[in-house]
Amino acid sequence: MNKLSIIKLGGDIINNKKNLNLFLNDFNQIEGLKILIHGGGKIATKLSSSLKIKSKIIEGRRITDESTLDLITMVYAGKINKNIVANLQSINCNAIGLSGPDGNIIQAKIRPINKIDYGFVGDITKVNPELFSLLLNNGFTPICCSLSHDKKGQVLNTNADTIAASIAIELSSKYNVSLYYCFEKNGVLNSVNDEDSIIDKIDPSSYTKLKLKGVINSGMIPKIDNCFDALKNGVKTVKIGSIKMIKSNISHTKIVL
Amino acid sequence: MNKLSIIKLGGDIINNKKNLNLFLNDFNQIEGLKILIHGGGKIATKLSSSLKIKSKIIEGRRITDESTLDLITMVYAGKINKNIVANLQSINCNAIGLSGPDGNIIQAKIRPINKIDYGFVGDITKVNPELFSLLLNNGFTPICCSLSHDKKGQVLNTNADTIAASIAIELSSKYNVSLYYCFEKNGVLNSVNDEDSIIDKIDPSSYTKLKLKGVINSGMIPKIDNCFDALKNGVKTVKIGSIKMIKSNISHTKIVL
Repeated sequence: MNKLSIIKLGGDIINNKKNLNLFLNDFNQIEGLKILIHGGGKIATKLSSSLKIKSKIIEGRRITDESTLDLITMVYAGKINKNIVANLQSINCNAIGLSGPDGNIIQAKIRPINKIDYGFVGDITKVNPELFSLLLNNGFTPICCSLSHDKKGQVLNTNADTIAASIAIELSSKYNVSLYYCFEKNGVLNSVNDEDSIIDKIDPSSYTKLKLKGVINSGMIPKIDNCFDALKNGVKTVKIGSIKMIKSNISHTKIVL
Repeated sequence: MNKLSIIKLGGDIINNKKNLNLFLNDFNQIEGLKILIHGGGKIATKLSSSLKIKSKIIEGRRITDESTLDLITMVYAGKINKNIVANLQSINCNAIGLSGPDGNIIQAKIRPINKIDYGFVGDITKVNPELFSLLLNNGFTPICCSLSHDKKGQVLNTNADTIAASIAIELSSKYNVSLYYCFEKNGVLNSVNDEDSIIDKIDPSSYTKLKLKGVINSGMIPKIDNCFDALKNGVKTVKIGSIKMIKSNISHTKIVL
């Protein structure tokens, strides 16, 4: 099977033009087939304040109302996706931008209302691999933003980490898939104030302990849950760290079962 | 050669959700291979006033400064393109959204500054047919918004009519191409206040007369210039009118050489 690298662009990189350019240069140098997944960072938040759209947060979760969904669709699939694609084209990476409705690649259902109505948030029901395979096998590099759709005409907001893991799992029957969660740090830190305190390896048992100690908390928990989910469902390698870990030997966090 | 219909969605249709839905239903019913081209209508203008971006107009031409380009990229490639694609997916048209940088489909150079600096406006230098052919031959329907790029990392604003004609010309060596400029009227009108005064046929000689009489003016002139350009360069049929002209026999304006 062909090797396929699935790279999630996260953290603060997307908010700074220079850092994004450096990231895309490193991405372009990764050999073999690859897919990039991105969200929107702080650009959406900044624009929402210009448009006077109030971010609704309930129990720490952002609610995607109609105006917010509109804004996210514009920022993720428009501004960010097209600028990333144009940038990659300028360095001869034959990139093509995608979002969930395109070729029906990421189908989801609106999250059911229990205690909280999250609004236009989609939980993935199906990743369709046909378009990815067609593009990859013909020399194109898919750049996918974190939007899904319900196949009934509604675009939905879906977590980019979960999209990356779901695509990785779906494509693992056709490719030898490595999944990389990239951000500005070199991995998951043992001590939040010490950039060098990279945890080399996390397995299910050490993960439980790290959660209990509070070393791994908040946003990192669903990310690592996604990592284990990927490994349990056919993805060969999952790593968290700087994009430079893919080509060089710098330290990073490897997730293992 | 396979038949290919290239449809430009124009006029006021895009500004009204119900009319857009009706249009997309008609579009879905067109048999054979097809491509849809769209711009942004009044949605961009409306949003620019919310964001307090002033539209600069010099000698009747809108200037695309950096904020306007950002806005257009968000509205065309984000909000409008993804909602059209999601809508078409809901009626089982396997649509995929594209813009100029995607797969390097529409390459352009920034318009040179003569009397007027148009800003980030691109004049098309090359349409690359590879991605269109790959998608069409594998059952996908490309939905292309009116953005180009300079292959140096810059997204550019390009007229949607010109993009439609340029794609039609480029693909006419591989397909039997018909080009349709669709809007809410049934064709080019002889009398602006009489919706029934459709001009059945325009050829170069009648075009000259219609321009002299002022029947054809302003925005319609570059549109019809694009039509003649397409016909001179391999496109088989060019028509202006309602999308219903493609399947039924209702009146429309046919452009001939």
